[in-house]
Amino acid sequence: MTVRIAVAGASGYAGGEVLRLLLSHPDVEIGALTAGGNAGSPLLAHQPHLLPLADRVLEDTTVEVLAGHDVVFLALPHGKSADIAARLGDDVLVVDCGADHRLVDAWAWERWYGGEHAGHWPYGLPELPGQREKLVGTKRVAVPGCYPTVSSLALAPVVAADLVEPEVVVVAVSGTSGAGKAAKTNLLGSEVMGSLSAYGVGGTHRHTPEIVQNLSAVADRPIGVSFTPVLAPLPRGILATCSAQLRPEAQDVRAVYEKAYADEPFVHLLPEGLWPTTGAVLGSNAVQLQVAVDPDLNRLVVVAAIDNLTKGTAGAAVQCMNLALGLPETTGLSTVGVAP
Amino acid sequence: MTVRIAVAGASGYAGGEVLRLLLSHPDVEIGALTAGGNAGSPLLAHQPHLLPLADRVLEDTTVEVLAGHDVVFLALPHGKSADIAARLGDDVLVVDCGADHRLVDAWAWERWYGGEHAGHWPYGLPELPGQREKLVGTKRVAVPGCYPTVSSLALAPVVAADLVEPEVVVVAVSGTSGAGKAAKTNLLGSEVMGSLSAYGVGGTHRHTPEIVQNLSAVADRPIGVSFTPVLAPLPRGILATCSAQLRPEAQDVRAVYEKAYADEPFVHLLPEGLWPTTGAVLGSNAVQLQVAVDPDLNRLVVVAAIDNLTKGTAGAAVQCMNLALGLPETTGLSTVGVAP
Amino acid sequence: MTVRIAVAGASGYAGGEVLRLLLSHPDVEIGALTAGGNAGSPLLAHQPHLLPLADRVLEDTTVEVLAGHDVVFLALPHGKSADIAARLGDDVLVVDCGADHRLVDAWAWERWYGGEHAGHWPYGLPELPGQREKLVGTKRVAVPGCYPTVSSLALAPVVAADLVEPEVVVVAVSGTSGAGKAAKTNLLGSEVMGSLSAYGVGGTHRHTPEIVQNLSAVADRPIGVSFTPVLAPLPRGILATCSAQLRPEAQDVRAVYEKAYADEPFVHLLPEGLWPTTGAVLGSNAVQLQVAVDPDLNRLVVVAAIDNLTKGTAGAAVQCMNLALGLPETTGLSTVGVAP
Amino acid sequence: MTVRIAVAGASGYAGGEVLRLLLSHPDVEIGALTAGGNAGSPLLAHQPHLLPLADRVLEDTTVEVLAGHDVVFLALPHGKSADIAARLGDDVLVVDCGADHRLVDAWAWERWYGGEHAGHWPYGLPELPGQREKLVGTKRVAVPGCYPTVSSLALAPVVAADLVEPEVVVVAVSGTSGAGKAAKTNLLGSEVMGSLSAYGVGGTHRHTPEIVQNLSAVADRPIGVSFTPVLAPLPRGILATCSAQLRPEAQDVRAVYEKAYADEPFVHLLPEGLWPTTGAVLGSNAVQLQVAVDPDLNRLVVVAAIDNLTKGTAGAAVQCMNLALGLPETTGLSTVGVAP
Repeated sequence: MTVRIAVAGASGYAGGEVLRLLLSHPDVEIGALTAGGNAGSPLLAHQPHLLPLADRVLEDTTVEVLAGHDVVFLALPHGKSADIAARLGDDVLVVDCGADHRLVDAWAWERWYGGEHAGHWPYGLPELPGQREKLVGTKRVAVPGCYPTVSSLALAPVVAADLVEPEVVVVAVSGTSGAGKAAKTNLLGSEVMGSLSAYGVGGTHRHTPEIVQNLSAVADRPIGVSFTPVLAPLPRGILATCSAQLRPEAQDVRAVYEKAYADEPFVHLLPEGLWPTTGAVLGSNAVQLQVAVDPDLNRLVVVAAIDNLTKGTAGAAVQCMNLALGLPETTGLSTVGVAP
Repeated sequence: MTVRIAVAGASGYAGGEVLRLLLSHPDVEIGALTAGGNAGSPLLAHQPHLLPLADRVLEDTTVEVLAGHDVVFLALPHGKSADIAARLGDDVLVVDCGADHRLVDAWAWERWYGGEHAGHWPYGLPELPGQREKLVGTKRVAVPGCYPTVSSLALAPVVAADLVEPEVVVVAVSGTSGAGKAAKTNLLGSEVMGSLSAYGVGGTHRHTPEIVQNLSAVADRPIGVSFTPVLAPLPRGILATCSAQLRPEAQDVRAVYEKAYADEPFVHLLPEGLWPTTGAVLGSNAVQLQVAVDPDLNRLVVVAAIDNLTKGTAGAAVQCMNLALGLPETTGLSTVGVAP
Repeated sequence: MTVRIAVAGASGYAGGEVLRLLLSHPDVEIGALTAGGNAGSPLLAHQPHLLPLADRVLEDTTVEVLAGHDVVFLALPHGKSADIAARLGDDVLVVDCGADHRLVDAWAWERWYGGEHAGHWPYGLPELPGQREKLVGTKRVAVPGCYPTVSSLALAPVVAADLVEPEVVVVAVSGTSGAGKAAKTNLLGSEVMGSLSAYGVGGTHRHTPEIVQNLSAVADRPIGVSFTPVLAPLPRGILATCSAQLRPEAQDVRAVYEKAYADEPFVHLLPEGLWPTTGAVLGSNAVQLQVAVDPDLNRLVVVAAIDNLTKGTAGAAVQCMNLALGLPETTGLSTVGVAP
Repeated sequence: MTVRIAVAGASGYAGGEVLRLLLSHPDVEIGALTAGGNAGSPLLAHQPHLLPLADRVLEDTTVEVLAGHDVVFLALPHGKSADIAARLGDDVLVVDCGADHRLVDAWAWERWYGGEHAGHWPYGLPELPGQREKLVGTKRVAVPGCYPTVSSLALAPVVAADLVEPEVVVVAVSGTSGAGKAAKTNLLGSEVMGSLSAYGVGGTHRHTPEIVQNLSAVADRPIGVSFTPVLAPLPRGILATCSAQLRPEAQDVRAVYEKAYADEPFVHLLPEGLWPTTGAVLGSNAVQLQVAVDPDLNRLVVVAAIDNLTKGTAGAAVQCMNLALGLPETTGLSTVGVAP
């Protein structure tokens, strides 16, 4: 089977990563590549690492250009996906890397993003309990945010097993590519190299409600999430430090994680003594986890690493495409990072 | 007044930073510079940024070499300061950048560092309540650890005012110089650039008891501290994200910080809307703070930035020297960072 | 003596560095700070490292605001200085960090920058033969470009002594701050971290004619310069590798450099065996040099390091202000870098 | 066909990269993995990015362990390969990533490396004229050094066509992984981040004679090479700036490069207007080239980018294995980089 795919937003980071992965996917043929302001220019001017696509020129992002493909990946600014998706037929698999269809509650969407809620689609985090089966055969996928991916996978097992108090603290340090490719002064190399900064402090980052949604769903009751993202000087990678108060009766937390992820191809609880690094998952779809319990506080600390562009965005998109199309879930994806 | 100073451990990062600062201190004359394995080699081979000391050669770290100075800075591996300090006379001001004399409790020392406790000295964090007066005129100073400095200053005001529950969570992201200059594979540039890692997870980092000690002292009751350090790819700087559950009755937390640090020359609560970055304090003795309250959780989040080698080590050492000698506290120190 | 200074372009990197240096200059009072699009906003929003100026607000860059100061530093985009300078009186010292008044030849200006030549001012590289005396008492200074500073100082001694063939090759690796603070996609942290790129290849960088001008002047005949700049992932610093074919009769090149810079406070030929690094000059006004002769080719290779924002821009500006005002040349400047 | 391979030196950077590539090579089965001091420890402790090999333990580097494989990759310190290779049978394909068998002349070996010359093997740079055929079916491959790879490919076309004067200047900026994984103070993250340094200046780097050998061979006469390596703060990548005086009669240099590399799968002359970056080739086996002629000097400048660990070492090793075994040359290799 060869599926023909299109990528809308092919000049950005998410779109570029989708293409990087699909270039080694055996069942895919790369069709239309579209952009907004960059339409008309060669793809290579924006994605110089995609040499096999050196002859491609970016087209305008229109329904006409995108139609006629089996799969359309949308890597567009928030709020831009819903309209296009609505006009692509129900026979087209639409994988939305943006936020438009992630949140279930309309009021949450309006509070955090503003404007009308476009509705919610099957959520592309198959490793959450009960989630994989919703993705098999679907024609619409909402790819999770990068921070929700790593935070939810880090905490879901103990939250699902009701082993921790219902308030968790997540501090996630991220590389800069998660902030996108739009030129902003605060994201200049001169500003970010040699510096660390926090942003969205006090629960104001838009990924907060998505983490709350995920953890509350697996817990089947409200979970409070204190979430702070920190920007660090590297292009890719998120390292999340997630902690929660263990219930007094909680035993052998490590075994809970071992069991939860034993059959997952991409989520790896590291052997004791090794700790996740983002360098080890660079360019891969792997999630590396490690757990510890602070003996003085009986507090669980989970450290998790992903590549925000791969498992955090484009890798998840491809993984979900595989599920939606009935392909082996790991096709075209790797757990081997590029290090050092 | 000109005081004659010596630095033991002058080829390392802490010793180099002490010298960098003292080179612009108007009341200081730089005397003996000593090292361990690097003794006999030119200082410039180890500290190529200290051009005015280009003619200096490192001597052996012995009491004989260090004696005869008004002030001796010890920038030695943990456990090496106590013996030397004991043999320097009581008329010499000894400023210990190491951990030997930071912890009050002998059992805590033994648990976290091992071996016999050398006793505790006046703790060099003058911005903690009641601490400055203990440093005026002292002949012995225990310079705080870098993580305890930033964490304690971030949380002391609300802990002292009993506005938060007695368990706090600190995730502090640090540059690599805090790990020192000894050659280790995991600290190679190839390993740390492009990667993030956590270490000392689960409350196992030796700075944990020092933060507990500081916060418990200002609270006058035990404070639990969940502390996780994260290593990021930059040479200098710590950004600490510190959070705690506000008591229901807590009001106007910002005013508490404003009042606490109104007269402090080095601790700056930023105007609302600006957030600390480590780049802004690079090479300076400043602490930049900002506070937020998560409205959904009523949880306080404080973000604080320091340069781990300056306010986190050598700047504090010079600040305390000034206090001990009766000099203006800010002499030779700056709140101006080197950015970008 | 206290001189009152103004900075036009205070929200950019050059303007910020001028202010950083002047904050520790004993003879200066900081007056008006102006900007273009950033006028009206607090300086601290753009220069968060300049805490002592936290109460300052940026004004519009107009002659009215700048007038009435003893010294005006212009840190404006190329082409913007000439008009303002012409309208500031001859009694005001104007130090132009831009390119407008660097080139002597009008045709060279038109070829490389376009538009009308504004004329040339005394060139602010006092370490070039015969240059210092032109700066003493001047009311106008053209601060050199960063690449010309390091390249000219690296090669002037042997070019002046006619020890090399009249064609030199310079490859200079630079941090990103030299490209300024305007938001551009190719300067985003995500783009520059983990990557190296060349630009202005084939002699097309605008600093080429300035290096040619300097070296030809000291040689008193035309010198060809093959100049290639390379962008590397660090905020500050230029390391220039400069080479030239030695004439057969050339002897003891090292002694030529020793003699040329023996009395220069900022230019340091390192002891044999040590090589310049940009880290060692970070934030300082020092130039570090080292020389070698390739025995197989009889080719001289000079390696030189500067901080592009300090000696490469703002440090030179302050150094020239000192000369122009009759102050000691090194006032407010340092040869001590911030390392690591 | 499945070939069984072993890697000696599997805990280092070259060995790790060989394994990373072979994990996606369809014709390979990974056998013994050996190390020196790290023998006995899990591979994952040293190569945390190689999750599919998480169950492997490093064995001692002995002939007994390495024997019985179809292919043995040697990623050992210089001088350690010859003895082992001699004791592996002639039926085993030995691919030496070290320097032992690169140089043809025994005197050159002795001058640059010291000790006895182990002889030379077919040189693994198939893109050099006449080189590919020497690798087909060979049982011994000397993998080129990283700097010689990029420098030789950048200059070979014009040197072979006798279009330039016989002295070339190469300044190559490199990431730190080329310096290996042995813990050294000058390679610590704290030292290399935020700094640039030159080393091996004056033609003293051991890769100089290898570049001379390659270019002289394609020219069939001696070519002088002024080579200076520069260390920059990134883990991977080399950007080489290579220049040479064009002969007056040289015409249309670009066409020479187009023709030389038209059929090469890994060497890409970029479209005019685009310049190579190391970020674009990260983790790939691609070489990106661009050329310019300085009109004032009639000097050719070629800029070339590779990943030093991939095309510069392990990718070349796999490429040569493919040739030696009669597999398609590009098997298991990619021209798609991991960016940003």
